[in-house]
Amino acid sequence: MTITVFGHPASTCTLVVLHSLKELGLSYEVVQPSSFEEIKTPEYIATKHPFGRIPSLSDDGFHIYESRAIIRYLINKYQGTKTSTILIPSDVHKAALVDQFISVETSYYSPHLSKLVYQLVFKKHHGGEPDLKIVNEARDEIGKTLDVYEKLLEGKDYLTGEFSLADLLHIPYAFYVFKIGEGDLWNKRPNVSRWWKNLSERECWKNIVTEYKLLELEQ
Amino acid sequence: MTITVFGHPASTCTLVVLHSLKELGLSYEVVQPSSFEEIKTPEYIATKHPFGRIPSLSDDGFHIYESRAIIRYLINKYQGTKTSTILIPSDVHKAALVDQFISVETSYYSPHLSKLVYQLVFKKHHGGEPDLKIVNEARDEIGKTLDVYEKLLEGKDYLTGEFSLADLLHIPYAFYVFKIGEGDLWNKRPNVSRWWKNLSERECWKNIVTEYKLLELEQ
Repeated sequence: MTITVFGHPASTCTLVVLHSLKELGLSYEVVQPSSFEEIKTPEYIATKHPFGRIPSLSDDGFHIYESRAIIRYLINKYQGTKTSTILIPSDVHKAALVDQFISVETSYYSPHLSKLVYQLVFKKHHGGEPDLKIVNEARDEIGKTLDVYEKLLEGKDYLTGEFSLADLLHIPYAFYVFKIGEGDLWNKRPNVSRWWKNLSERECWKNIVTEYKLLELEQ
Repeated sequence: MTITVFGHPASTCTLVVLHSLKELGLSYEVVQPSSFEEIKTPEYIATKHPFGRIPSLSDDGFHIYESRAIIRYLINKYQGTKTSTILIPSDVHKAALVDQFISVETSYYSPHLSKLVYQLVFKKHHGGEPDLKIVNEARDEIGKTLDVYEKLLEGKDYLTGEFSLADLLHIPYAFYVFKIGEGDLWNKRPNVSRWWKNLSERECWKNIVTEYKLLELEQ
């Protein structure tokens, strides 16, 4: 079995794949594109990802792209074979709640966090100035979302009660938000803050942070 | 078994749930909110959807919100029990490709179509004027996406070869785009056009169009 991830640890979509691989106890290798331009070449588009993005994954001749599809594939094929971690439960009602919070993350969480991180990390790194209007709007929207999470997380360690793929998908963007000093949005909400502590202290995530030097990594 | 959908047929997210219910051969009732304001009330937020959206679904006491999670739940619980239609295959590689195209739809298709439909349908209906700059940008982006689809659909009737949830999720927005006379983006691409013919002629979808009077429905 050879699992190869085509991606880059500065990409949040790559990070959720790498984190899932570790939670499932799978060994893998990462092949990084030599440059941003490489993923827009006709060859890359023809063989790796038709929309010119990262990540994609090859597993013993089977190729798949898009992080969420990659992770579901890994879960369907390997969950329970190397570790006891359950990212999507087999129980139909428990799985439904994991899917519900995966959709919540896609709809109400990541769009706002990605705007904040884009303005305060990627734009700055590329010599631009953050648009403070967008920064403030994003902070407001993140605040509204986390207000809802604060209620949903009452008495719970994780979104559905137990750690799942839904929680995992929230980690990389929040990590960057904390890294750039905007973690007050989490810290002032007790349930959200406790949840983030549980997430950020997952052994597999801490290994990712160390292995890929995420605290030092420039975007 | 009593399945109740809280939603509205003008909502594309409600439509994909209704279409999935029909493909799976399940009977259901629809409860429509009395007004847009109702879904923002504390009671609705506490009992139906914490972010104040539609649709949500109740099935014999089990409540779930977010359309994609609802559909996965219905598939996990009922697929194959009433009809032979397979929305997500059990084969791990086939399922992975369905998930891949579900993610493609979320990432590169619906964001652009929703902008176009918002400008040309919802905004107009509420007395506003469409922003032609946004309309043209959305048309450009849809064109780029459909150029990729044109290649992916070469020699295929559906995205993965066989009809699946990935195809189904593309239908409602495309229906609205055709309804407002912007279907040229599909028609000038032969593979995309053939695919749309296959999708729009699904018996279950045609039943939805008739039953909920989608051609006459004001947004």
